[in-house]
Amino acid sequence: MSITKPSLPKGTRDFSPQEMVKRNYIFDTIKTVFRKYGYAEIQTPSMENLGTLTGKYGDEGDKLIFKILNSGDFLGKVDESFLATRNSQLITPKISEKALRYDLTVPFARYVVMHQSEISFPFKRFQVQPVWRADRPQKGRYREFYQCDADVVGSSSLLNEAEFVLIYQEALSNLGLKDFDIKINNRKILTGIAEIIGKPELIVDMTVAIDKLDKIGFEGVTKELLERGFSSADIEKLEPVILLQGSNDEKLESLKAVLASSVVGVKGIEEIETVFEYLKALNPQPSTLNLQIDITLARGLNYYTGCIFEVKTNEVAMGSIGGGGRYDDLTGMFGLKDLTGVGISFGADRIYDVLEELDLFPASAAQGTKVLISNFDTVAEKYALPLLQKLRTVSISSELYPTAAKLKKQMSYADAKNIPYVILIGEEEMKTGFLTLKDMHTGVQEQLTVDEIIGKLIS
Amino acid sequence: MSITKPSLPKGTRDFSPQEMVKRNYIFDTIKTVFRKYGYAEIQTPSMENLGTLTGKYGDEGDKLIFKILNSGDFLGKVDESFLATRNSQLITPKISEKALRYDLTVPFARYVVMHQSEISFPFKRFQVQPVWRADRPQKGRYREFYQCDADVVGSSSLLNEAEFVLIYQEALSNLGLKDFDIKINNRKILTGIAEIIGKPELIVDMTVAIDKLDKIGFEGVTKELLERGFSSADIEKLEPVILLQGSNDEKLESLKAVLASSVVGVKGIEEIETVFEYLKALNPQPSTLNLQIDITLARGLNYYTGCIFEVKTNEVAMGSIGGGGRYDDLTGMFGLKDLTGVGISFGADRIYDVLEELDLFPASAAQGTKVLISNFDTVAEKYALPLLQKLRTVSISSELYPTAAKLKKQMSYADAKNIPYVILIGEEEMKTGFLTLKDMHTGVQEQLTVDEIIGKLIS
Repeated sequence: MSITKPSLPKGTRDFSPQEMVKRNYIFDTIKTVFRKYGYAEIQTPSMENLGTLTGKYGDEGDKLIFKILNSGDFLGKVDESFLATRNSQLITPKISEKALRYDLTVPFARYVVMHQSEISFPFKRFQVQPVWRADRPQKGRYREFYQCDADVVGSSSLLNEAEFVLIYQEALSNLGLKDFDIKINNRKILTGIAEIIGKPELIVDMTVAIDKLDKIGFEGVTKELLERGFSSADIEKLEPVILLQGSNDEKLESLKAVLASSVVGVKGIEEIETVFEYLKALNPQPSTLNLQIDITLARGLNYYTGCIFEVKTNEVAMGSIGGGGRYDDLTGMFGLKDLTGVGISFGADRIYDVLEELDLFPASAAQGTKVLISNFDTVAEKYALPLLQKLRTVSISSELYPTAAKLKKQMSYADAKNIPYVILIGEEEMKTGFLTLKDMHTGVQEQLTVDEIIGKLIS
Repeated sequence: MSITKPSLPKGTRDFSPQEMVKRNYIFDTIKTVFRKYGYAEIQTPSMENLGTLTGKYGDEGDKLIFKILNSGDFLGKVDESFLATRNSQLITPKISEKALRYDLTVPFARYVVMHQSEISFPFKRFQVQPVWRADRPQKGRYREFYQCDADVVGSSSLLNEAEFVLIYQEALSNLGLKDFDIKINNRKILTGIAEIIGKPELIVDMTVAIDKLDKIGFEGVTKELLERGFSSADIEKLEPVILLQGSNDEKLESLKAVLASSVVGVKGIEEIETVFEYLKALNPQPSTLNLQIDITLARGLNYYTGCIFEVKTNEVAMGSIGGGGRYDDLTGMFGLKDLTGVGISFGADRIYDVLEELDLFPASAAQGTKVLISNFDTVAEKYALPLLQKLRTVSISSELYPTAAKLKKQMSYADAKNIPYVILIGEEEMKTGFLTLKDMHTGVQEQLTVDEIIGKLIS
């Protein structure tokens, strides 16, 4: 066995105990809200058949899928002259039939189609699992990262959209975020706008351009629209829509005026209005909801067919921390037609960075060891063992330092592990039965009986 | 986009909401016990560099590692004549530099070495993540499955071994298992036995043979030992050891007599005695502990250097549901010498099958939706929305059926999702304010106010 200096594949990460506590805190908070709204967890395998994944993410996406090499003599079956072409792209399907999932959406669609006879629709599922992309790693972009998705398929009710707004609101508030915007748009409104201008075929160009309003301003957008085939007259019609201002109600009124002659556009407005009505009925304090109509929002336009969502925090400079929308033919790719669905996703890695920057993680690492019992010699160790058991019997996470060691060493162990209390057992303690309980944050030491210590630690 | 009839790679599985609740129940129960004993969670990436994994699991193991194809033009860099050999094994490292982890132990060793400067030893970690093996799939053997490991490195104290016995005992009891054996052995005892016979070089042959006692009986073991180079005189000496009977104390006394002249053998006996002493001090009711000395237990002998554990249930015919032991040089493969460790593993998939067969999963799918509100028309829907919000405000997982539908359809939805209660809202209910709460298990219907319903569901 040769000695290898260990390293990690680029774009991948280890998670330390401290990081895991924080990550679990985020995932548990979000999962709890998902469950409260009736979403149930599923998991799918890390590997899918290559045919399940290819062709679903565009040519660029296909290149980013990690393929798994067939086992055994994978080259033996490949034709020799074919191999001689050294055409990686053509040879890949001959030596690889499986790949790592690229997102949770396509495996979910596959799941729904494969299990359609067992599923009672509407099917509300959530899924929190890693995905893999052979992207060039950079700050905040990893080759393995978790996605955190909730979707419902088989229900066209806009109650689902309204509930997703509340799920965002509740989960992010529970994580301690105070100032964030949930943005809503509707693909049908975008279609309507393109119709009104008389350029329905340029909808993608239009949305790509107006999506940049934040960054390049109206002047920049105008320039880009001209380049992309719109006339000055078109842009004149677009201007009031792009520069839409005011409250959500005011925006809806303006849109109604502009889109009056577009059936699909009016439908889009109605859908957003219905979502707002549901929210009014569900949410007694609408003022607490940071929901904003933003018609520049597009997010993978070709995918969504109804409402589109995006969430941004205003407390930290960060891209979107969540997004989603309605799609009308997710499972069509696997032969199950006309199953409508809507879903959202939380950007867990970005939320992690936001909470870290705002110092919002709960100070007490609730899942860690609560108390360390010191170990100075075999007599003290023997004295400590029944105490250790007693603490655990009442479910207090506890450790006895496993060998007799210097106080300093044991204290730095407690420090490094962020253990809030240490019980010190010396000769005096064993004689009197009053043990020393040290609060590691304040440094305060108290002499207490075992029962007093338990009372203190259990509260 | 072509239509693909969806399927799963062989040896992999989807987990449905019902299965996920059960799997989470197992993992959460085990994790809670790990934490109580001071173990903290880490995670490592699914992918490791190929060099980190190869050479660690033997030639057979190396073949079972799933390799990931390099991205981009992976063949462009491979020499043409070399490629023409079509030697899969030689070409693999040229077109693949990453692989999926095969177990959690080697990635853990890599983690410890890479992060040694941040770690405060002894380092007590647990890890629950999937691993992948290109094994031939069969009943109970999958290509993707979860491992569930706890290890401590940097402490030679046998308190760790004693605590692992208690962790097994507590976790399996908490899962509802009543009759299981925790078996303990010590590699040093096996070494001692081989020494006493005068055949230390045949220790592997000896343990492989006596490990089969259960299956082939003493006669079979004798035959195999003769084939493997032992003499009749050797077997005569081995007989009392192989057929060791009686209580743990009696077994230890017999072993002491047999191994008196072997320094290492005596050390092994002392280690087991120390573990028993710790357990006596920790565990006030030793009678509840199903711990048995079993010197036929070997489990990957070349790996372990001290105590060896294995857990078997007696309630269902099933292989071991857990195992582990002490190793003295885990991190040596990555250049960090002399770091001792001990660890155990739970066989989560097998435990799942055992609980299923014994019907031990808690009846209430505690994580699922608690109550479904019916939806018969828009008036009733409107009436229901504030109620829905009220239920969720007090953290009751609840759903409103998202569209008006026939009662039967809504009831079968609740049934399929195992939702225990349904609130029925018809004209009468809206008039009186007394809603109908149906208990889906008993079929009993009650007329209750909203507050009465909340009181009932929250308890």
